[in-house]
Amino acid sequence: MGKKQKIFRPKARIPKGLRDIPAAAVRAEAAMLARIREVYEAYGFEPLETSAFEYADALGKFLPDADRPNEGVFSLQDDDEQWLSLRYDLTAPLARYVAEHYDGLPKPFRRYQTGPVWRNEKPGPGRFRQFTQFDADTVGAPTVAADAELCMMAADCLEALGIPRGSYVMRVNNRKVLDGVFENAGITGEGAEFEARHLTVMRAIDKLDRLGPEGVRLLLGKGRKDESGDFTEGAHLSDEQIDRIMAFTGAGGDDRAAVCARMGELVGDSARGLEGVAEMRLIDELLSAGGYGADRVAFDPSVVRGLGYYTGPVFEAELTFEAETEDGRMRFGSVGGGGRYDDLVERFKGVKVPATGFSIGVSRLYAALEALGKLETETVLPPVIVLTMDNDRLADYQRMVMELRAAGIRAEMYLGGSGMRAQVKYADKRGAPCVVIEGEDERAAGEVTIKDLILGAQKAEEITDNTEWRESAHAQISVPRAGLVGAVKDVLARHTAAR
Amino acid sequence: MGKKQKIFRPKARIPKGLRDIPAAAVRAEAAMLARIREVYEAYGFEPLETSAFEYADALGKFLPDADRPNEGVFSLQDDDEQWLSLRYDLTAPLARYVAEHYDGLPKPFRRYQTGPVWRNEKPGPGRFRQFTQFDADTVGAPTVAADAELCMMAADCLEALGIPRGSYVMRVNNRKVLDGVFENAGITGEGAEFEARHLTVMRAIDKLDRLGPEGVRLLLGKGRKDESGDFTEGAHLSDEQIDRIMAFTGAGGDDRAAVCARMGELVGDSARGLEGVAEMRLIDELLSAGGYGADRVAFDPSVVRGLGYYTGPVFEAELTFEAETEDGRMRFGSVGGGGRYDDLVERFKGVKVPATGFSIGVSRLYAALEALGKLETETVLPPVIVLTMDNDRLADYQRMVMELRAAGIRAEMYLGGSGMRAQVKYADKRGAPCVVIEGEDERAAGEVTIKDLILGAQKAEEITDNTEWRESAHAQISVPRAGLVGAVKDVLARHTAAR
Repeated sequence: MGKKQKIFRPKARIPKGLRDIPAAAVRAEAAMLARIREVYEAYGFEPLETSAFEYADALGKFLPDADRPNEGVFSLQDDDEQWLSLRYDLTAPLARYVAEHYDGLPKPFRRYQTGPVWRNEKPGPGRFRQFTQFDADTVGAPTVAADAELCMMAADCLEALGIPRGSYVMRVNNRKVLDGVFENAGITGEGAEFEARHLTVMRAIDKLDRLGPEGVRLLLGKGRKDESGDFTEGAHLSDEQIDRIMAFTGAGGDDRAAVCARMGELVGDSARGLEGVAEMRLIDELLSAGGYGADRVAFDPSVVRGLGYYTGPVFEAELTFEAETEDGRMRFGSVGGGGRYDDLVERFKGVKVPATGFSIGVSRLYAALEALGKLETETVLPPVIVLTMDNDRLADYQRMVMELRAAGIRAEMYLGGSGMRAQVKYADKRGAPCVVIEGEDERAAGEVTIKDLILGAQKAEEITDNTEWRESAHAQISVPRAGLVGAVKDVLARHTAAR
Repeated sequence: MGKKQKIFRPKARIPKGLRDIPAAAVRAEAAMLARIREVYEAYGFEPLETSAFEYADALGKFLPDADRPNEGVFSLQDDDEQWLSLRYDLTAPLARYVAEHYDGLPKPFRRYQTGPVWRNEKPGPGRFRQFTQFDADTVGAPTVAADAELCMMAADCLEALGIPRGSYVMRVNNRKVLDGVFENAGITGEGAEFEARHLTVMRAIDKLDRLGPEGVRLLLGKGRKDESGDFTEGAHLSDEQIDRIMAFTGAGGDDRAAVCARMGELVGDSARGLEGVAEMRLIDELLSAGGYGADRVAFDPSVVRGLGYYTGPVFEAELTFEAETEDGRMRFGSVGGGGRYDDLVERFKGVKVPATGFSIGVSRLYAALEALGKLETETVLPPVIVLTMDNDRLADYQRMVMELRAAGIRAEMYLGGSGMRAQVKYADKRGAPCVVIEGEDERAAGEVTIKDLILGAQKAEEITDNTEWRESAHAQISVPRAGLVGAVKDVLARHTAAR
């Protein structure tokens, strides 16, 4: 084809790691977002929309794999030489927004935002370079009551979406406690080198799920060679330090107060660590007062969160059930997370603005709800199709669809170039409940024929004999032209009742 | 500040030509999109979402100012060297989608899509580099009944949004008729040079609104020097050719049939021109049958549309009223447009796939509705704020907000670090209908105080004497703790009734 003519024909393909979302999924996702919005609004959060781009320096470098050359972000240079980046999350743009409009905002500033974010990462199965997040943040709230609230709200969201209690858990930890454990274990220092080491330790802990305790011990020590032979440099902690870290990550459990007690032991007399433990105790108190037991919100020191900007409580929403997916039986794991980031607005303003937030990974949660059969897929009935039997009578068919729409019924006139058989096939493909036919005969008799496609399909399934099928499977009736709307309504009522 | 410490502080600023959308506007825009969606769905269109990026070659070069160096598009190179571009409209991605999934789609394929698009253009007042469009397209529809339908649907949309009949008009023209006029005037040729000249003529016509007939005549002839002294090269048509073009652009009027007749004269015996006139006659027939008079959908040969990909009917939605805006009294002009693009899918597939579409410029239409006072701004009541009078009793306050939420009332506990005065100020700023107070005294009495902020503000306006204000403006009542929800409901009922 390309050889015969010299015209350039681009290949029709979506860029790698991106995807199109067809009608049913668009509707189901919208229903899902509406549920989340209801919960966020009940808690007093207000919407905000920021643009897709931020100046690169405003976004900062907080992504887990900041060591990749392009740092995980899509960036380009503006015509005034400034670098623009597509947002990789909704938190960094919020920090910019708050810093820019600080004086005019109510404090605390409670906002929710949903929209796409972009990561310039290697795509994989279920791992896209554009995905949707739905965040709620409280900026200007020093108390961890704000963090406790977010954990409760996240649990409410998951239940509002149909995930049963017991099938999810919010897991909470605290970076201050982690810092205290480091300090008490003698992992101390200052400056960029210490921070890099600190990050290495946190990322090692973050891999506990995937690598198991032995793998993490290697990463905390000399380093680890993976199956492909690639070597990852370790954090070079001593065996005793590693023991303490591992003891900490294993200190979770069903009793939040007991976890707090173990945390208290592991931080020793580190002031920062003790502050973190006190925060966890307050969070426990508020959760308990709210009736949120450890089955819904648990304390788990193995949660660290990859992002570099957290400073206090961190939390992760985890689905605990297994489900059948295209890739076999699997646990969905994390569908959201967040934490406290007291320094993010300070980056701009030079003054502390304590803040905390929670982000739902909409695309991942969607996949989980799909596997659970909890998506709201119904919602909108497909349109009634009026067939175009005669191209000279388009105005008459158009009048029919207008009458149907005026009665609140989705309807369209067939606008393709094919004959009747193909038109009915088209209506089937659209899932149309029925088609309306006014050919020469009907016209002469002053009638229209309404063919019930859903009933027709059911009958066709029941009937094996082909002749009989031809007779009855049509499931069609003829009514006077003036009775069009009423007859279509009858068909729709039958289907709505059956659903 | 920056001099005292060496820490890098990025300036908190949104990139130029972009904007943040605050809560009330997010809600009003969502209400607007819901109205448009209802109309599109009634017409049988189904949603689709494509990603923000497309491969640059798939998008093609169809923007009006393709002569700028960056061609109006934000582009960057992927790590496999391929160029990615952010979509500049929703039509080109649709063409890519249809070509990629052609065999599996129902034909015609009727889809709607809304979302941001990006243009790398010079920003100006009300002219942003990210804005929202809301499109509906019918792909695989050879008949201009599809175009007529889009014009009617666009008119329905504007009325559904509250724009009164008479305050808008859909203006329709046809590129084939324009081609016929060119041919009949002896403006003929082939290849890239002719196409460029053709485009120069169309863009000249497109400037009729701004430059008037004299300015356009110059652009059709030798060229035009603007006020700044910049010279724009003309199309170098002869005076007689210019006369014919100008006669055509002036051939509009209130009677669609009469416009068709004048079009017929101006195309002479150009086959393509006559085809276009026949199309316009069919569109007129369908519009008239549908009851859409020229007050709603008019034929206007001065409409050409800037985009390069149109091949048949083109249409523009214009608001005809003047309104007071920040920049003074002005006519809003175009808030949407579209047309037929029979070649856009062919670019990929090598086979004709006739298509037509209409796009609403959501951001512009929003500004127009705002000026008209037709935005749905109400929608969600601000939250009730429970003050935190005592930091040791957060669990008690949290219980109150939980009770309120369980009763369907938006509510939040104050989470900032300030005292009571600032807390009430915060509640005012949030627009809270009331605050709930349980201080030491109330606690001792087993009561809570509910302070009606809206009533309080009204009273404060009526009262000039400061002492009296202190007494009465509080508009507050104390109720037993168990009566909290009921008392708050009473306050809300009063306000809802008053609105």
